Amino acid sequence: MSTTASNGIDVAQLIDTIEAIKADPNVGEFTFRARSTWQSGTHSLGEIGAFTHAGEQDHTRVAPFRLEGDEPPVLLGQNNGPNAVELLLQALGFCYAVGYVANAAARGIEISRMDYEIEGDLDVRSFLGLEGARAGFTAIRAKGTVSSPNATPEQLRELCQYVQDTSPVRDNLANPVPVQTSLEIV
Amino acid sequence: MSTTASNGIDVAQLIDTIEAIKADPNVGEFTFRARSTWQSGTHSLGEIGAFTHAGEQDHTRVAPFRLEGDEPPVLLGQNNGPNAVELLLQALGFCYAVGYVANAAARGIEISRMDYEIEGDLDVRSFLGLEGARAGFTAIRAKGTVSSPNATPEQLRELCQYVQDTSPVRDNLANPVPVQTSLEIV
Repeated sequence: MSTTASNGIDVAQLIDTIEAIKADPNVGEFTFRARSTWQSGTHSLGEIGAFTHAGEQDHTRVAPFRLEGDEPPVLLGQNNGPNAVELLLQALGFCYAVGYVANAAARGIEISRMDYEIEGDLDVRSFLGLEGARAGFTAIRAKGTVSSPNATPEQLRELCQYVQDTSPVRDNLANPVPVQTSLEIV
Repeated sequence: MSTTASNGIDVAQLIDTIEAIKADPNVGEFTFRARSTWQSGTHSLGEIGAFTHAGEQDHTRVAPFRLEGDEPPVLLGQNNGPNAVELLLQALGFCYAVGYVANAAARGIEISRMDYEIEGDLDVRSFLGLEGARAGFTAIRAKGTVSSPNATPEQLRELCQYVQDTSPVRDNLANPVPVQTSLEIV
């Protein structure tokens, strides 16, 4: 395992983080948050700001990230932003990339390219109240493209499997997670 | 059921869409896509562009939506954008809002406010290769806040349940979806 920075990942910080969590599992605990404010029709504004780490609020973000969510015209919107299920696919690509390059760095594998194309099949009948397939994606396909100047194909394929096994977003898609929903009427 | 536009939703178009899908279920079929290109460290650029509807490519987006994904410093990044699991939470809020206001419009319920706060608990030990909880969120909580000038609390609560039952993003979180991952080495 190399301790020099690799792939833009500070491997020394990565190792320190792992050791800190081994010493106190609470250091591994996060609560993330997102907020959305409906505008009109299928258009909402999103905000992703502070999160909680080990019971304390993180203050490194000076302002929340702002996103727009909307539907295309065929789904009653005006293309002010991607739709919700497209964001789900984007999240999987981002998650896979972080896992791949960080674990590569920890193994001394240099990465020169790491792209993902994610696609998902969705039948909107359930969403529209008709009999049909499940409401969400029936299948998601992720295709990674990787280049490395110093790894074997076997190492790169093994890492792809490792990343699938430890990806938070893949876990939440491939396996059920409890979603508790409440409503306040004001 | 009202056919006038309501909540910014074109209810006549909504009904036409439902009738078109009843006549030809293929009209309800979509394949959505997202692409990500790794930059450095935990930072990737995302693009969400054209999708396939009923076997044909949609051309209403003149350019893809661009997103940035990154981690905060405590997770080895530089806050160039939200992280992947935060995007997952944002997607749930956007999805719930679309479902709520569109179904409200179809029922003649006016919505004057529809916000969501979504949060999720995540233990990063599995992601870092340590023994611990599952890789993804162990729990997700969604809190909606709604106002309507013409609906009863019972109608608004019933609609909240209906939206949970038909939300594509909630379905893909609460129930498993097959995720197929491949890797090309170039």
